[in-house]
Amino acid sequence: MNEVLKAIKERRSIRSYKPDMPSKEDLDKIIEAGRYAASAMGQQDVIFVAITDRETRDRLAEVNHDIGGFPEGMDPFYGAPAVIAVLAEKEWPLRVYDGSLALGNMMLAAHSLGLASCWVHRAKEEFEMDEFKALLKELGAEGEYEGIGHLIVGYADGEYPEAAERKEGKVFYK
Amino acid sequence: MNEVLKAIKERRSIRSYKPDMPSKEDLDKIIEAGRYAASAMGQQDVIFVAITDRETRDRLAEVNHDIGGFPEGMDPFYGAPAVIAVLAEKEWPLRVYDGSLALGNMMLAAHSLGLASCWVHRAKEEFEMDEFKALLKELGAEGEYEGIGHLIVGYADGEYPEAAERKEGKVFYK
Repeated sequence: MNEVLKAIKERRSIRSYKPDMPSKEDLDKIIEAGRYAASAMGQQDVIFVAITDRETRDRLAEVNHDIGGFPEGMDPFYGAPAVIAVLAEKEWPLRVYDGSLALGNMMLAAHSLGLASCWVHRAKEEFEMDEFKALLKELGAEGEYEGIGHLIVGYADGEYPEAAERKEGKVFYK
Repeated sequence: MNEVLKAIKERRSIRSYKPDMPSKEDLDKIIEAGRYAASAMGQQDVIFVAITDRETRDRLAEVNHDIGGFPEGMDPFYGAPAVIAVLAEKEWPLRVYDGSLALGNMMLAAHSLGLASCWVHRAKEEFEMDEFKALLKELGAEGEYEGIGHLIVGYADGEYPEAAERKEGKVFYK
């Protein structure tokens, strides 16, 4: 099995993190992988917001927690110190497909660098809020965006699990 | 750069194919990569229909062509001999995200095996038609599915192009 197929089979969504921050260099590589994902008609309509500022990360977690209606004290980012929010142009009909492809590349890139990651949802609801629209403006993102998802990134706390068994009856040939 | 990051940067969407059919073994590896993509809550709601039967492939191309309103004689599958349709459970709210992640893994897997691929849209419209709903039934796919996309797969005809330049102003840090 080549290294790409191996990474695809071994990657897992990790839900427990050490507090250690990944290097800026690794985060940049992960984002670069997202930028090189295919996009419909080569539109490149996806943007990336890498959040490592603790206060912003914690506030986003708080809002995400409330949207999700999670139990008190539960961190929807599972302790991961870095959160990369992925958004795409609101008016682009294929934004969800394009944003998802970016997130998929980023998961594999993180895994290849020895980092753990997990897609966390509710970015759509967050970035409909004035507070986070203001954050985008502050950072210089012009235009209107829909939140597609977050990739939380960090070092796995505990053993890296094996992939769950795949369900049968999902593949057909003609 | 590790092999995974390299594959991510070098993969391209290819729009010209030789008629040669990829091996069943390689198609299986590509589908396996799709099956190992993350899915929301580990739902594994995605199914894969690998079409190598020429008549079925050509009929799907014809319908895809008509939905797209393309110029006469244009093959929306660009001459690729194999088409893997990806669908996901219609009632699952996160089906487009999950199906897209499967397609992204498949693109990288194909590239890693020396094969070319390209996402082709309009699977949603196709699989709303009785004709292709009947095909799913014939193949034994129970339930209701939404078409997410097709991955066309084959050998690139002509030089494998370099990735287009990435647009500026897509990455922000906080």
